[in-house]
Amino acid sequence: MRLRNKPWAKDKIAQNPQYVVPNPEDYKGKWHEAFGNQQPLHIEVGTGKGRFITEMAKAHPDINYIGIELFDSVIVAALDRLIEADLPNLKLLNVNANDLAKYFTKNDVDRVYLNFSDPWPKTRHEKRRLTYKDFLKLYEDIMLDGGEIHFKTDNQGLFEYSLMSFSAYGMLLKFISLDLHKSDFEGNMMTEYEQKFSEQGNRIYRCEVKFQPKSKDNSF
Amino acid sequence: MRLRNKPWAKDKIAQNPQYVVPNPEDYKGKWHEAFGNQQPLHIEVGTGKGRFITEMAKAHPDINYIGIELFDSVIVAALDRLIEADLPNLKLLNVNANDLAKYFTKNDVDRVYLNFSDPWPKTRHEKRRLTYKDFLKLYEDIMLDGGEIHFKTDNQGLFEYSLMSFSAYGMLLKFISLDLHKSDFEGNMMTEYEQKFSEQGNRIYRCEVKFQPKSKDNSF
Ligand SMILES: C[S@@+](CC[C@H](N)C(=O)[O-])C[C@H]1O[C@@H](n2cnc3c(N)ncnc32)[C@H](O)[C@@H]1O
Ligand SMILES: C[S@@+](CC[C@H](N)C(=O)[O-])C[C@H]1O[C@@H](n2cnc3c(N)ncnc32)[C@H](O)[C@@H]1O
Repeated sequence: MRLRNKPWAKDKIAQNPQYVVPNPEDYKGKWHEAFGNQQPLHIEVGTGKGRFITEMAKAHPDINYIGIELFDSVIVAALDRLIEADLPNLKLLNVNANDLAKYFTKNDVDRVYLNFSDPWPKTRHEKRRLTYKDFLKLYEDIMLDGGEIHFKTDNQGLFEYSLMSFSAYGMLLKFISLDLHKSDFEGNMMTEYEQKFSEQGNRIYRCEVKFQPKSKDNSF
Repeated sequence: MRLRNKPWAKDKIAQNPQYVVPNPEDYKGKWHEAFGNQQPLHIEVGTGKGRFITEMAKAHPDINYIGIELFDSVIVAALDRLIEADLPNLKLLNVNANDLAKYFTKNDVDRVYLNFSDPWPKTRHEKRRLTYKDFLKLYEDIMLDGGEIHFKTDNQGLFEYSLMSFSAYGMLLKFISLDLHKSDFEGNMMTEYEQKFSEQGNRIYRCEVKFQPKSKDNSF
């Protein structure tokens, strides 16, 4: 995500607390209060400019969504979309995914979306990949039992790595497509990066993986 | 594998009992006697014309190999290679993989290779795929604990299916390449089908998966 200096971004975010939650730690364990209903909650980590999460929120009014994005200069684009669409079931958090446990607790989240996460191809940067085991632990700790991660990328190395990481964590690989746009998968919602990279001819990889009950005597 | 009528195949196989084992059930639990040593045993299920297994046996004299192929008209080509190379550490079985448990028992086998297995794309033929759960059970029951399957194919659908099948069986996905010939994987041994399909421009998929100790209280 190219970062342009946007000095007005912080102000715009602060002026829209109904969309970009300024005090997410206050809703830990009670996100239904932020939305005013008991719907399931799906979050996207690394939302970018928000095309995916906004379209998902439009298409599924019976689900609550939260888009999480580190950079204010990027999340403002998602904020613009949200202001335009005025959706009651979508909120944004301008926070670091490393800190998820500050804002969410066990059973808060039903599903995590990861779309075109930064690949961090160098081995020494493995720990920064959003599918590294420490992140999987963060997601597991805020989700319902049996919660799912839905992951898309065009990056072959990151996809290979992630399948292995999910498996090593003991997760069930319940859906895999190695060429999403040529498959018969229905209801795909494009992300900004997906549009760009598929137009360049890249294959899109997608999987759905599920946390499994941990037993005491296995060696995962 | 295209089948030509080869009436002489059965005779040729019968004339070479040192290469194509005529009584494999007699070696169940004691394959080291067939080879006259205590080396690990790797088997390939669906060997075809035997290029892979012959080259592996040449490259790794410290491992014993068995190639298993259903059709006599196909296995004769592997037999020709083996006669030519005269390898003490390779044998062939002209049997059906469905019957593996007749010829092998727990701890007989260290590794199973599956190369370009028939894809059986129709859902109603799922049970015929060599990575269907009943076959995984057959392999597990004849292997050492922690034994591995090494699987290659150019068939995208079969590869997707197999990764999900391995995962659902509780296996660990320890290596995945989604484009083997463009990867830095070393020591790849080409099969007949691999040569043909990679020349047509198809990607080759490869994975290594490992059986894991089963625990009583998990739901795999
Ligand atoms: C490559 S972009 C993809 C954006 C969008 N998901 C898409 O598919 O178009 C990855 C995004 O993740 C964000 N990101 C990366 N690490 C993050 C973290 N630790 N916490 C929050 N956001 C993060 C980046 O700032 C960037 O906007
Ligand atoms: C597509 S060919 C691949 C041959 C070789 N592995 C290669 O990569 O060139 C699959 C082979 O598996 C054999 N095969 C299929 N099902 C089998 C079974 N149940 N038992 C033994 N061999 C089988 C077929 O006869 C065929 O020769």
